[in-house]
Amino acid sequence: MKRAYNFNAGPSALPFEVLEKAQKEFTNFQESGMSIMEFSHRSKEYDAVHEKAITDLRELLHIPNDYHVLFLQGGASLQFSMVPLNFLSPSRTADYVLTGVWSEKAQDEAEKIGKTTTIASSQHQNYTFIPNMTDIKPSHDSAYVHLTSNNTIYGTEWKHYPTLDVPLIADMSSDILSKEIDINQFSMIYAGAQKNLGPAGVTVVIIKDELLKNSTENIPTMLNYKIHAKKNSLYNTPPTFSIYMLSLMLEWVKNQGGIPAIEARNNEKAALIYNCMDESNGFYTGHAQKDSRSNMNIVFKLPTEELTNKFIAKSKELGFIGLSGHRSVGGCRASTYNAVPYESCEALVTFMKAFMSEN
Amino acid sequence: MKRAYNFNAGPSALPFEVLEKAQKEFTNFQESGMSIMEFSHRSKEYDAVHEKAITDLRELLHIPNDYHVLFLQGGASLQFSMVPLNFLSPSRTADYVLTGVWSEKAQDEAEKIGKTTTIASSQHQNYTFIPNMTDIKPSHDSAYVHLTSNNTIYGTEWKHYPTLDVPLIADMSSDILSKEIDINQFSMIYAGAQKNLGPAGVTVVIIKDELLKNSTENIPTMLNYKIHAKKNSLYNTPPTFSIYMLSLMLEWVKNQGGIPAIEARNNEKAALIYNCMDESNGFYTGHAQKDSRSNMNIVFKLPTEELTNKFIAKSKELGFIGLSGHRSVGGCRASTYNAVPYESCEALVTFMKAFMSEN
Repeated sequence: MKRAYNFNAGPSALPFEVLEKAQKEFTNFQESGMSIMEFSHRSKEYDAVHEKAITDLRELLHIPNDYHVLFLQGGASLQFSMVPLNFLSPSRTADYVLTGVWSEKAQDEAEKIGKTTTIASSQHQNYTFIPNMTDIKPSHDSAYVHLTSNNTIYGTEWKHYPTLDVPLIADMSSDILSKEIDINQFSMIYAGAQKNLGPAGVTVVIIKDELLKNSTENIPTMLNYKIHAKKNSLYNTPPTFSIYMLSLMLEWVKNQGGIPAIEARNNEKAALIYNCMDESNGFYTGHAQKDSRSNMNIVFKLPTEELTNKFIAKSKELGFIGLSGHRSVGGCRASTYNAVPYESCEALVTFMKAFMSEN
Repeated sequence: MKRAYNFNAGPSALPFEVLEKAQKEFTNFQESGMSIMEFSHRSKEYDAVHEKAITDLRELLHIPNDYHVLFLQGGASLQFSMVPLNFLSPSRTADYVLTGVWSEKAQDEAEKIGKTTTIASSQHQNYTFIPNMTDIKPSHDSAYVHLTSNNTIYGTEWKHYPTLDVPLIADMSSDILSKEIDINQFSMIYAGAQKNLGPAGVTVVIIKDELLKNSTENIPTMLNYKIHAKKNSLYNTPPTFSIYMLSLMLEWVKNQGGIPAIEARNNEKAALIYNCMDESNGFYTGHAQKDSRSNMNIVFKLPTEELTNKFIAKSKELGFIGLSGHRSVGGCRASTYNAVPYESCEALVTFMKAFMSEN
């Protein structure tokens, strides 16, 4: 079998080793005569999977003991509502930094719950950059500051994070586990799994105990972080297979040498493609300003829409998957998440060079 | 490999044919060089899976055209809140029929949203029966009547449903697809997948268009049925692999001869075990009254707690999985969902008879 060159923005490529391991034990987990999917979420076998995923994530991200690791459902989109439901009281303002469509959506959902304000934004320049750190000033009655660490659609990514005296909450769906971060700068991080963590269907939430202390009571149980934390994400049946796949992904990251090794490789992969763009004399132009470039989503276009379309059509013929840009930006996008092999990026650059010389 | 005799209450047994098919194409879906998990939820390949699941469910349950079929996340537990959020306006009362812990939880969540009342209950007799049909009288200002069709913990199941002039909403998590039902009696049906529909991680919602017309506006987008219906469950990234597994399960039910054939087999499976109990001269006694017995969860106990514990211990030695009763009822429970083979039930009865004669 020839693996596809998969540059999907999410759901996206998974490491072949992870898929092979899951396939091997798919019908007979640990010689039990059962699939992992057929185990009770209260069984000792599933519990070991659940705990291993928590432990490995703690280890990889150096998560301090006063943070909870939760496995929820509903993707980042449900977090957009859960965050204000739990943490935005009527006397406070929720501060949002807008760096793309997903941060807009997060603020829109919070606006249904309480008072919000946009404290910084790059919307006026079509989200081509990440606002300056010095511009991130919380409101005087700020409940929290919310930001989106990586912008899948526009291909921008935060390089540093502000240190604030109000809770900082980050949607890291598309760059969690791709580089070292200091968890202590955040009161909460959340991420849908379908980019760097595994298949769609589980959302990882890392949340500081202190933040939970003043959370709103009497909200729907399934939207209450305090209950999920208390029940170790087993209040109701969790998406057991998705969590199992997550645990295999975390094991794979460890086997690769942990986040430092993954980060180095991600830098190399992205540099390969950005260099090709930069050396193309304007044939390939990036959407993001250079200092805001994402290592996860590389968004670019060709001199004309016609050439862009030809490029995408030709890429499909050659077996490249997912190189069309998001409909709101157009052009092309190569998503180079952790599981995308260096070889796929090399193949893309070879194609980009050949296409340029032919057109 | 010897398959386990899996009587788990959920997540539970899946058909071996389904597991084998998923395993076979796990790393290479339709010769694409990709796992189904690696496809975009906007790709034509995933779309075909998504649409096939909807079409097959419509066909199997004879779902009329004015009903939507949705694939959501969060299990039945999130539905407990979504139902009142969407359909319980401040001027109305939500009516609940209590037949177990899950219906209690559903009412508790609704109570956070608005006014509720219990219109019928078997709580006073430890949920050993389903209330009489004639007792199901909606409030004069009823927004809807909610019931739980099958009670996993107590082993009771509704045999008929009332025909009402207010919307009837049923949690069918543990008996959907196990027998013929008339969808027209319901305005909405929901079910977590992890019993009869597939692995944990997707919730099926069947909802009448008319019910959506008057639903509440300005609630969180992810909790808004109208939006999920409008977007065909693709508002955000759905749990694509869980929906793929659901589609394989539905195909399997069709290959078995559809619901009539599945229902006949479920009747035989349950009769085998209930007959063994009834012929045991009180050695095995059921929790449910005879006219309320569930075909999905068979709850029973032995003459003493000591014997019950011995029975469960011995069953584990012999490779039976999941025969402990729920902690709130004690005793034993055999869950005999669609995917549990007749042979597993035969093996259980053989063991029950042997254990009785030895003790």
